[in-house]
Amino acid sequence: MVIQIEPDSVVPIYTQITQQIIEGIARGDIKPGDLLPSVRTLAADLGVNMHTVNKSYHQLEEKGFLQILPKSGSKITSPDELDPLTHERLAAELRPLIAESLAIGMSEEEIVNLVQTIIRDILQ
Amino acid sequence: MVIQIEPDSVVPIYTQITQQIIEGIARGDIKPGDLLPSVRTLAADLGVNMHTVNKSYHQLEEKGFLQILPKSGSKITSPDELDPLTHERLAAELRPLIAESLAIGMSEEEIVNLVQTIIRDILQ
Repeated sequence: MVIQIEPDSVVPIYTQITQQIIEGIARGDIKPGDLLPSVRTLAADLGVNMHTVNKSYHQLEEKGFLQILPKSGSKITSPDELDPLTHERLAAELRPLIAESLAIGMSEEEIVNLVQTIIRDILQ
Repeated sequence: MVIQIEPDSVVPIYTQITQQIIEGIARGDIKPGDLLPSVRTLAADLGVNMHTVNKSYHQLEEKGFLQILPKSGSKITSPDELDPLTHERLAAELRPLIAESLAIGMSEEEIVNLVQTIIRDILQ
């Protein structure tokens, strides 16, 4: 899996790394138990600061997708080890965006179509 | 429409106000052209600081849902006056949450069901 950084994006680079790793997990390109490259290695590969990759790994750990093991590397969490609250957190984070979609006049069907388009775009 | 503040929530009070107003627009309880109460009035009604309501109104303005008119009050934007980029912004903000949903093992059907449940909960 290749991570592509857009230096001119409004999205911070550490967030770009986090999102691409999560999309990699979503597609199955990255699997539970996989070890991510060391912070040093990935930073060198991407040509970014080690601090940036470190921040992304900690963001992934906070979201429950990564276990940072100081001696043996950073391991992708398996779904059965995930915090059961993750589902509730996602529902709580989705709600304001769905409310905004309705408030700008989108119908239920249009919102569902948008979600399905995004899913296909991530999985392709 | 009644705004209910949960003082102990992890969601900041200004965000609670913003989200409830957006859900009011989504349901049609608040309509384009409606004037919101003045910052002073709403703050007094809710028993919160004027600064908190002011922050919420500016957040609503930033999202495009409110026009703050210094002399004639704060008016709800009509959908045809909305920035056409709002749709793209929402798609961009939805994508990382949908990627996370897939990454924790949710199927397309489960995500669509979750979205439909949230829509019904907002509209009820």
